[in-house]
Amino acid sequence: MTTLDLQRLSPAERRYELDLLTAGYVHALDDGDLDRWPDFFTEDCRYKIIPRENYENDLPLAIWYCQGRGMLRDRITAIRETQLYAPRAMRHVTGNALVTECAGDGMHAVTNYAVYESTLDRTSEVFNVGRYLDRIVVEDGQMKFAEKLCIFDTSLVPTSLIFPI
Amino acid sequence: MTTLDLQRLSPAERRYELDLLTAGYVHALDDGDLDRWPDFFTEDCRYKIIPRENYENDLPLAIWYCQGRGMLRDRITAIRETQLYAPRAMRHVTGNALVTECAGDGMHAVTNYAVYESTLDRTSEVFNVGRYLDRIVVEDGQMKFAEKLCIFDTSLVPTSLIFPI
Amino acid sequence: MTTLDLQRLSPAERRYELDLLTAGYVHALDDGDLDRWPDFFTEDCRYKIIPRENYENDLPLAIWYCQGRGMLRDRITAIRETQLYAPRAMRHVTGNALVTECAGDGMHAVTNYAVYESTLDRTSEVFNVGRYLDRIVVEDGQMKFAEKLCIFDTSLVPTSLIFPI
Repeated sequence: MTTLDLQRLSPAERRYELDLLTAGYVHALDDGDLDRWPDFFTEDCRYKIIPRENYENDLPLAIWYCQGRGMLRDRITAIRETQLYAPRAMRHVTGNALVTECAGDGMHAVTNYAVYESTLDRTSEVFNVGRYLDRIVVEDGQMKFAEKLCIFDTSLVPTSLIFPI
Repeated sequence: MTTLDLQRLSPAERRYELDLLTAGYVHALDDGDLDRWPDFFTEDCRYKIIPRENYENDLPLAIWYCQGRGMLRDRITAIRETQLYAPRAMRHVTGNALVTECAGDGMHAVTNYAVYESTLDRTSEVFNVGRYLDRIVVEDGQMKFAEKLCIFDTSLVPTSLIFPI
Repeated sequence: MTTLDLQRLSPAERRYELDLLTAGYVHALDDGDLDRWPDFFTEDCRYKIIPRENYENDLPLAIWYCQGRGMLRDRITAIRETQLYAPRAMRHVTGNALVTECAGDGMHAVTNYAVYESTLDRTSEVFNVGRYLDRIVVEDGQMKFAEKLCIFDTSLVPTSLIFPI
């Protein structure tokens, strides 16, 4: 493991490293490997799932709000131990990442996503689409999400938002 | 802003620059930032939205046809000032871009896309899928679309094709 | 055509070459250019389409199973000459590829995909989503799939699985 220095990477290298981070992130979720999910975040991260309308009107309501990796771990424990839900598979397909800023110790990026949900006895369906607004820093020699906002496009709260987006 | 020279870029660099162009393009549309849309095109560009069946049979009918950046601007004005429609969010997820040719002053590329539409009181739905057939040149030191054909897969004209694809 | 040496490529170069392979693969399918499909595989390849549940439980049932490029060609002949189906267009949108291993003569990668189906008189619909689990080697100087597993997320066998995924 080599230590990354965001400022010394070329724009193309930064995008490549971000792609790796995002690919690792979505495959951990899609593989149901939820215990690995907090590892993609910094210790004092912020993770939110927000309807687009709220985000654009600066309304504070988030469907999910986690502050710090500890809260991410609590979420996973809750999903595993206290929630009841029919088995389902999630699948993320992400578009081109766009690094919008790289300054100081971090960079900002936006990436469109579509998440599909499949239950055993149904076909696959579009579950949630929107964009990730990420702030990425290097911690412990690796890129991590210091902030990840999942801004989804409907105002409807998904009826079955069990897993992270 | 440095001047790009398509012929001097490596294939990987060309693909990276194209990814940037496409990412900027789709985020301008998805952010509803329509005034920036014409900026991704050359002054004498051609922009068309065509059903796949027509395209494959060399039929001339396009659902949208714009010749020149001025017509793109007129379209945006029309959308803003004369059209009535329920608020909706569009979201583009694009696949891997494939540069199919790079010769002379430009390059050709194909990129699959899926566009999702979300209205306030509904879930997100697949709106239009197809491929971009792009011809890209450098103008004013930046990659721009000299031609962008959006070939969509159904023969049905989308009932609510309000925004560019 | 230059001969690729996977072990001498940087990780970013490997990912780029894999993107080219995948983009070529999906565009051959989406263009209906089925005769080119076997060319993306090695002579003694393995190609399978498997429901996720079977894959995760090590159940042997595959919806499609082809061993060797000859069987891929037979499949194409069968599709062209013996199967009856309404005309339809397929469209693949793939997410970020993640190379999970590169050792010896090959590399392994995982890529999420969403396939949309459009028939002439319908809108486009989500047809099949899942992930490609690929083993890629260099044969005849080009990257090819030595193994391609298409693990799809539902347990339902698609009612109209006519074309390769």
